[in-house]
Amino acid sequence: MGGGTGSAPRDSRLSGGAPRAGDLLGDELRGVDAYWRAANYLSAGQIYLLANPLLREPLRVEHIKPRLLGHWGTTPGLNFVYAHLNRVIRAGDRDVIHVTGPGHGGPGTLANTWLEGAYSEAYPDIGQDEAGMCALFRQFSFPGGVPSHVSPEVPGSIHEGGELGYSLAHAHGAALDNPGLIVACVIGDGEAETGPLAASWHLNKFSNPATDGAVLPILHLNGYKIANPTVLARIPQDELDALLRGYGYAPRFVSGSDPATMHRDMAAALDWALDEIDDIQRRARTGDGSGRPRWPVLVLRSPKGWTGPSHVDGVPVEGTWRSHQVPLSAVRENPGHLAALEQWLRSYRPEELFDDSGAPVEQVRAMAPAGNRRLGSNPHANGGLLLRSLRLPDFRTHATEVAQPGGSTSQPTRVLGRWLREVAEENADARNFRIFGPDETASNRLDAVYEVTDKQWQAGTLDTDEHLSGDGRVIEVLSEHLCQGLLEGYLLTGRHGLFNCYEAFIHIVDSMFNQHAKWLKISRRLPWRRPVASLNYLLTSHVWRQDHNGFSHQDPGFIDHAVNKKAEVIRVYLPPDANTLLSVADHCLRSRDYVNIVVAGKNDTPDWLSIEDAVLHCARGVGIWEWAGSEDGGEPDVVLACAGDAPTLEVMAAVSLLREHLPALKVRVVNVVDLMRLQPDTEHPHGLTDPEFDALFTTDKPVIFAYHGYPWLIHRLTYRRNNHGNLHVRGYKEEGTTTTPFDMLVLNDMDRFRLVIDVLNRVPGLGVRTAGLRQAMVDKRARHHAWTRTHGEDLPEVLDWAWTN
Amino acid sequence: MGGGTGSAPRDSRLSGGAPRAGDLLGDELRGVDAYWRAANYLSAGQIYLLANPLLREPLRVEHIKPRLLGHWGTTPGLNFVYAHLNRVIRAGDRDVIHVTGPGHGGPGTLANTWLEGAYSEAYPDIGQDEAGMCALFRQFSFPGGVPSHVSPEVPGSIHEGGELGYSLAHAHGAALDNPGLIVACVIGDGEAETGPLAASWHLNKFSNPATDGAVLPILHLNGYKIANPTVLARIPQDELDALLRGYGYAPRFVSGSDPATMHRDMAAALDWALDEIDDIQRRARTGDGSGRPRWPVLVLRSPKGWTGPSHVDGVPVEGTWRSHQVPLSAVRENPGHLAALEQWLRSYRPEELFDDSGAPVEQVRAMAPAGNRRLGSNPHANGGLLLRSLRLPDFRTHATEVAQPGGSTSQPTRVLGRWLREVAEENADARNFRIFGPDETASNRLDAVYEVTDKQWQAGTLDTDEHLSGDGRVIEVLSEHLCQGLLEGYLLTGRHGLFNCYEAFIHIVDSMFNQHAKWLKISRRLPWRRPVASLNYLLTSHVWRQDHNGFSHQDPGFIDHAVNKKAEVIRVYLPPDANTLLSVADHCLRSRDYVNIVVAGKNDTPDWLSIEDAVLHCARGVGIWEWAGSEDGGEPDVVLACAGDAPTLEVMAAVSLLREHLPALKVRVVNVVDLMRLQPDTEHPHGLTDPEFDALFTTDKPVIFAYHGYPWLIHRLTYRRNNHGNLHVRGYKEEGTTTTPFDMLVLNDMDRFRLVIDVLNRVPGLGVRTAGLRQAMVDKRARHHAWTRTHGEDLPEVLDWAWTN
Repeated sequence: MGGGTGSAPRDSRLSGGAPRAGDLLGDELRGVDAYWRAANYLSAGQIYLLANPLLREPLRVEHIKPRLLGHWGTTPGLNFVYAHLNRVIRAGDRDVIHVTGPGHGGPGTLANTWLEGAYSEAYPDIGQDEAGMCALFRQFSFPGGVPSHVSPEVPGSIHEGGELGYSLAHAHGAALDNPGLIVACVIGDGEAETGPLAASWHLNKFSNPATDGAVLPILHLNGYKIANPTVLARIPQDELDALLRGYGYAPRFVSGSDPATMHRDMAAALDWALDEIDDIQRRARTGDGSGRPRWPVLVLRSPKGWTGPSHVDGVPVEGTWRSHQVPLSAVRENPGHLAALEQWLRSYRPEELFDDSGAPVEQVRAMAPAGNRRLGSNPHANGGLLLRSLRLPDFRTHATEVAQPGGSTSQPTRVLGRWLREVAEENADARNFRIFGPDETASNRLDAVYEVTDKQWQAGTLDTDEHLSGDGRVIEVLSEHLCQGLLEGYLLTGRHGLFNCYEAFIHIVDSMFNQHAKWLKISRRLPWRRPVASLNYLLTSHVWRQDHNGFSHQDPGFIDHAVNKKAEVIRVYLPPDANTLLSVADHCLRSRDYVNIVVAGKNDTPDWLSIEDAVLHCARGVGIWEWAGSEDGGEPDVVLACAGDAPTLEVMAAVSLLREHLPALKVRVVNVVDLMRLQPDTEHPHGLTDPEFDALFTTDKPVIFAYHGYPWLIHRLTYRRNNHGNLHVRGYKEEGTTTTPFDMLVLNDMDRFRLVIDVLNRVPGLGVRTAGLRQAMVDKRARHHAWTRTHGEDLPEVLDWAWTN
Repeated sequence: MGGGTGSAPRDSRLSGGAPRAGDLLGDELRGVDAYWRAANYLSAGQIYLLANPLLREPLRVEHIKPRLLGHWGTTPGLNFVYAHLNRVIRAGDRDVIHVTGPGHGGPGTLANTWLEGAYSEAYPDIGQDEAGMCALFRQFSFPGGVPSHVSPEVPGSIHEGGELGYSLAHAHGAALDNPGLIVACVIGDGEAETGPLAASWHLNKFSNPATDGAVLPILHLNGYKIANPTVLARIPQDELDALLRGYGYAPRFVSGSDPATMHRDMAAALDWALDEIDDIQRRARTGDGSGRPRWPVLVLRSPKGWTGPSHVDGVPVEGTWRSHQVPLSAVRENPGHLAALEQWLRSYRPEELFDDSGAPVEQVRAMAPAGNRRLGSNPHANGGLLLRSLRLPDFRTHATEVAQPGGSTSQPTRVLGRWLREVAEENADARNFRIFGPDETASNRLDAVYEVTDKQWQAGTLDTDEHLSGDGRVIEVLSEHLCQGLLEGYLLTGRHGLFNCYEAFIHIVDSMFNQHAKWLKISRRLPWRRPVASLNYLLTSHVWRQDHNGFSHQDPGFIDHAVNKKAEVIRVYLPPDANTLLSVADHCLRSRDYVNIVVAGKNDTPDWLSIEDAVLHCARGVGIWEWAGSEDGGEPDVVLACAGDAPTLEVMAAVSLLREHLPALKVRVVNVVDLMRLQPDTEHPHGLTDPEFDALFTTDKPVIFAYHGYPWLIHRLTYRRNNHGNLHVRGYKEEGTTTTPFDMLVLNDMDRFRLVIDVLNRVPGLGVRTAGLRQAMVDKRARHHAWTRTHGEDLPEVLDWAWTN
């Protein structure tokens, strides 16, 4: 064994004098084992039993579920960890939450939370008695019940065990700014093969031992995935030891299968780990020592399907991939399997573990911590309980003065950065707001925040570094997965945050977003889960201004991806200027239980709306810009609609051209900030009713819509609207390259000249008498294109345009 | 230094007796240095110069580009590696390709391929002379030119340097089945923070030293990302050494900034690494020794912006993040910056490096390998040159006999697996076909392939393992990122493959798919890039049969994501049964330069079409199933359309109910295999013309469309069609949970009874006289729902249904 399993020195302990591993009396060890057996029994029961939960009578086929679904393999190891965490929580009156990374660990966590009573408090219809046990068994992987992985329905969880790879990032997010908390994170060896998990080991380069809580990774090597061995279980132990030391940890191994030995080893190892954590924290918090500590990590090597059937039908099952799901699969058809199941279940001696009523006996109950110390009841794992609203400074004080629309320009994210600086400052004491970014916070022009805070960093520093320190509100790591995982963990434990990211690369976390949106949909329907702060994306360095980085950096499709998720949790905002961005951001940081996607530019953008108008416009989400159009009270001849900063600029320029060349044409300008307003009100809570939509977009006039992203999305949102047949959308159509900003618009047919041509094409009767104007527009596009290719920049006469009312 | 930098033993060398590091004469060292200086000069020139490329006259503002774009920081290190790779390629006549992982390494790779002549062969208008140099400079980050990262336009590249994290997986994919190839993979320390890269280090557990080529990772620590230090550059060297040893490598460090010392150290380190590779391969190939070797890895620690301006405006630039992009940013405005630029450029002594014509002098030219040994000309990096078509066995021999439609059932992916077994067998000698999966190939029921091949695996084995061996056509690793990265590398070097994945979790690689689709769009337009085999996704264990895994495993949105990319490269197939899946798969494995997305089930599915009908149906992509409908020649009253296996079954069952209860109703059944047929022919090469579409879907009859995925996608594809107003789509709407297969359909309103109700609602005149039938349908849904919640399985009377003509 790599790190040895003997007792570690105890002199550095901070907490009280409760019994320790070395002091483990026979009684306590037996208690832990009884608790573990009870949890294993309940886990197997969930997979198999519809009735006869306590085996009060011989097991018969009619007691067995018709569909045997669930995952036994990882469960006994998880139960083992849970039982031992309970011991140290009780012993030290510690504040601990757990994150269960391995897939399909549901039966175990459900069993444990039921044993400790937390489950019955969340679900009073599933009591701690025989009927409750029967209901617990029945609901598992059963229609109308709960899935076989740890899900939002499980008390004490902030982590879905469905898609794999995010446990350690979630754990670190939970630990941030929770100095009294320990997050025990069980990492499956299957999960450990994923990219996000592999990257997460380095999060110890960001964790501050003085101001953050501790993460205790417990790498669980049960050796197998669905049908294959795992990489980390099949490398020599010295290699794994080097790997973990290379990640910056102090590893200790607990390996074996004999329960008594394993109990002693695990107890000693956990005591050692908590001693190490105590010592690291004491030193960091008393100024005794500096630098990045070597946090402990435990490696638990135990058989897959531990304590389950050793062999089935003559082939080994325990300790192989064959125990991944249901070790005995033919119990309803094969009497031998049925007998083996009964023998297996009785091997846990349920009659010793549960009393006549079906409740756990005192020996078992006593092993669980009390009240909020229970892993299933810790309020950190139901973060809404702890959530405090942010102190939000008045964003209006950061507004850009707008003497006349388009008369000045601002860099929207730079303006936002100044407000975020104040948000960081105002909530510095509360320590409940963080900004995450993949090395892009300055590039995205939010760097004003560095006037009041730093980037948190625990790795080495040099004199030339700027804004790096052990304690800061910004965390930057070049992994969108880690940014997302940290923020999710931070939010689900009751805090607030923002993830700023290049628009194109947010697709890296598409699947993480999926799982978080699914989590929110379910958790919103659970009365005992309290609302948490929304997950806020600020997507900038967007498609229209990645002209210098080229095609690979151009993708506005995250919105398309997001709107497939439940409408009740998805919000999408496209503020056209700095003041609208301020108003949107303030709204998002106040909201709960949503995913807010804000797309905004960092480059100079005309200021269109005063802050008062911006607030009003954002509250409406969509509106006619009367001052920009030329309707003159009546119905317009054409509607020019826009969503996004670049489209808004092009529409305004197009309108300017139309007013100059076709002064009689009645043009309406509609700007969309809240994209979900376009959907029918039956599809999205923000959706406009049909009369509202018709009042903006008419029922029969041509609508030229310049949209920030892929044009098809606007059709997907509006296909049921009365005037959809007249809707013509321009947007990004994958014609990206390295060029100038305006040439990007030309290449994608969303430039002002093209929009004018669209109007000429679509408004009845304009065709012939505007041939000259059309040709002028065609010529301007061609001239611009040629100019950029010669001069390498935009044609000044295009850029020099300015809006005038 | 960790691994030392002295010369290593040479006795194990396989290749010839060319000069070695220790033998490096002054001349050779000076040659390598001259080559490096030339590459650095050309790199800086690309960022800055529009004219005066050889500095034949004093540098003036008008020689400078108007927009200074590009990335200097990583470039000199990349050039250094390139120059030294050239030396060992020449010395050993080695077959080497390189993968440039760091972001924005474009200037360096462009400079090097121009120096060696490969660039001018691909782009004859950019010759090896002064005019060509000027054109090379001009096009860089310039409208109509090339981006600042390594992109498809760069000869010798199989890896886009835009989004980060995939270099090492691409390198391993390229090395598979190329035993004579060495893939030198430069990994940026920024990139190294990403999840996919962090996971990729473990790919050495799959690489076979006898049958695969070698990957030589070169971790380049220049210390900084955009605005932050990197994690791996700021941990102690012993920790990094342990990390790399923990990954299973033998590391060696080359650290410093003095060019002469660094040249000597790098030459020695590369010789050592190639000796190690030779030795590993010799032992593996002669049966001398076994087990997983410790492959060499180099760590190059050199200053960011090495050889660039040391300080600018009084602050350090070289060796800091400030040299990430353009070290001197105000050369057009600030005469001091202009002078510093000229001094910097002249420090490379261009007059020694280029002759009067502007071509590299002989000392420089001689440093590049010749012909196809040049990194910019190696045919492996233009894989279409090497591509051989697969020998595809006749899929018809694996067809399911279909005596009558729906009269039998098959598991489509299981049937496919038998054909894939033959594909693997037929191409075993060619070694050019592989299957990748995240531990799901057996779960996805393709396990027939294990009858003829194994899962390739180089980590430890146990007696209980099955189908693991050092050499196999299947690679399974629990990382969708690695599966995708390996397959991309395999395809781009001229081979064939298939990625099989749970449908929901393919979103993990959304962004990788994006980049590959963008790569294909560009590479298809480059005449010198030859077509490569398509990237084939088999998405199974799909949304409608993840009822046991629950909500987190249910997401059919990858199709939505994919169709935003250029139509010319995207193909989507939804075969409704086993025979159509066979036909589709055969088609996909023959195709080139596409991304093929095939969604198919693994569960029992009725066999609808004989193999002849299946082939015909797949060739058409969409068609009327006359035998299923009740049109009787005339116009139908209603069209029931379906795409996907579950929707097809429900539509057929609904039609059956309609024929029973409303025999006079004329029903048309349309099945869609090739989803892109729904788009207008102006939008997609497979799109139906409007008359074709109208002939199938009518112009005025109600269409009830049961679709596999999110229903909005069908509207997005058809909104311009004449009959779109009558189109009513059912599909998945995020109502997933753990339940029975049929209850999933009921929850999402796509079950047969709901479809019948939809018909009753939509066909004019049916409303009143069918009240009884409607109520019967409502009752069946309610009864089924109640039944599943009591019995835990589907109601038999629903399952017992069978199609009869």
